Formats: sequence, C-alpha cells, structure tokens
Amino acid sequence: MAQLFIALIHYPVLDRNGRIVASAITSLDLHDLARSARTYGVSAFYVVHPVPDQREFGARVVGHWMEGPGRQFDSRRREALDRVRIVPDLDTALADATALAGRLPLMVHTSARSVGQMSYAALRERLEVSDDPPLMILFGTGFGLAPSMLERADLALAPLLGPEDYNHLSVRAAAGIILDRLRGH
Amino acid sequence: MAQLFIALIHYPVLDRNGRIVASAITSLDLHDLARSARTYGVSAFYVVHPVPDQREFGARVVGHWMEGPGRQFDSRRREALDRVRIVPDLDTALADATALAGRLPLMVHTSARSVGQMSYAALRERLEVSDDPPLMILFGTGFGLAPSMLERADLALAPLLGPEDYNHLSVRAAAGIILDRLRGH
Repeated sequence: MAQLFIALIHYPVLDRNGRIVASAITSLDLHDLARSARTYGVSAFYVVHPVPDQREFGARVVGHWMEGPGRQFDSRRREALDRVRIVPDLDTALADATALAGRLPLMVHTSARSVGQMSYAALRERLEVSDDPPLMILFGTGFGLAPSMLERADLALAPLLGPEDYNHLSVRAAAGIILDRLRGH
Repeated sequence: MAQLFIALIHYPVLDRNGRIVASAITSLDLHDLARSARTYGVSAFYVVHPVPDQREFGARVVGHWMEGPGRQFDSRRREALDRVRIVPDLDTALADATALAGRLPLMVHTSARSVGQMSYAALRERLEVSDDPPLMILFGTGFGLAPSMLERADLALAPLLGPEDYNHLSVRAAAGIILDRLRGH
C-alpha cells in the first residue's frame, strides 16, 4: 500500500465572506481527525498553523494526553494522537512526509465547491499499489482552502455528495468519510 | 427510497469505566450530525436526552440559528438544523418518525465493540427499496450505547474498520461515515 498522509490547514483558508484568514486550532478537530487517521492507517496527521501561539496550544492538547495528566486516563486517545505533527506550513509537512515515505507525496484536495476531477474509487486503487507515490490529503478549516492552496494540489477529488443538493459537511465528518472511501474495509 | 432517521442517544450510555450515565448535549455534535443528516437525506435527526435542562440547552443551540441572531448569518446551518428534533426518550422519537413515515422504523445500531450482523451494502440495498420499512440508526455518545439500548435494536451493523486494529472513531466522524456508506453518491 502507498503511504497516506493528511494535513489540516488553518492558513490560508476562507471565512464566510470569502476573505483569506487564519482559523484557530480546535481541540476537537485534533482529536477527531487523529482518531480517524489512526483508524484508516494514515502515517502522519499534520496540523498546519503559521502562528507560534497556536502551535503551542496544539502541542499542549496533544501533550496532555501523551505525557500529561491524560496519559493514564485514555490510552486510545494516546494511540491516535501519536501520529499528530504540528507544523508552521505545508512545506514543512511535505518535507517530513517525504522523509517518512522516501518520496514526495502527491497533494490531493477536496472541496465542497470544487469541480472534482478524480473519483474516490480511482484514488483508492492508486493507494493499493505500493510503488505508487504517497498521497497527502489537504483539509481546509473555516469555509475551505484558499485558492492559492488549491492551486498547489496535484489532484482534486470529487465533492462528497448524498441524495440531496446540500454538501456542507463539517471537516470532522468529511475527513472521516474521505478516509473511509479510500481505506475503509 | 425508504425513509432514514437518526437518533443521538445521551442516556443510557456508558462512561469509560462501563458505568451507565447520561452524557451532556454538545453544540458541535448537534451541528455536525445535522449537517451530515441533511447531506445524506435523513428525514429527521432526534437528539435524545431525559433531562429537561439539557433539552432546553439543545433547543437554544438550534433556536439561535433558526430564529435568533444566527438566522441571517448562516443559511446553511439553518437548512441543516431544520431537521433536528429534541426529545426526552427513544419512544418519543419512534412515535414521531412513525407519524412522518407512516410506519414504525426498524432500529439499527452500530458499535465499535459489537459483533456486526449486517453489512452496509445489504442495508443500503434495503434502503433503496421504497416499500421496505423506514430505518432509524441509533448513535451513542460517551463510550457507546448501554446494553439495554442495544437490545432494543432490530439490526446490528458491522463495526467500521480500516486497515488497522483501531476503531475508536468520534461519533461525529462515525455518523458521517455510516450515512455515506448507506446513502453516499
């Protein structure tokens, strides 16, 4: 199997008015995406934030469960948070993933608004071939990834759709669903 | 298509020590599950809590976006929260769903710990037949549904699995993944 990485991007993302902002790291996003990442065999989960105070907050959330008071309290959280890496930018995440996988990952984005070019089934097949390049899936917080971040991606996934014309899933649900489509049993 | 309902159960659920407790309603669970429910064509999302103060809290969260200050702020949240019904117990949820669907729904549970009896593909096929009974999927908060609640269910779904031996997803991720497996396009 090719290695799979995910990155949760807090900057540059859009706010509800389409302005480019940095969003705040939330404890629940870290926990939920870490648990989904661990379930679906993601090699590392990068939390990307340019602001040092925000990265320190993220590190405290992880540290609480890894070494702090939470350590004896819930081993299942520790197992999940073990794969979290808090980094200042996407390039740092890519460099780390390249070191882990031995190859630069292709970047994949998915967006409720995007016109998708690749099906989940096609990407799933690629992941099953071990000598295919690793993949890093970019998730946006706020109202989604800024255009400059979308342009950096190598592949775009089709939007997640159900039977209705509404596809405004939370990033916590969307990340779980996408990982399940790519790696679920 | 048969109608689909979901219920988020806050009592009786287990805590980390396996004791039966009532968990607190959280704003984010309501928002995330409402958005997933709306995306995947769920007819109503029942938030089940026996404590009146907790139901009032849930109603305030919904009311903020439906009629209160949030109304003009984010129409996509309003569209999702429109399907939330806050009820004291499962029987009230079942009675309401029966009135909406014209038939008593079969209850389905899924649990990380359960030995699943039914595949997602098989349940998906049932949902596609419009004269099959409606379904209500029960989701537990805390550390999962209490045994007495599991016993009430008519069908058990297989646990959600990835390539690793870890399946402790958040209820926000799990609900999205299950709805996507049953109704995703």
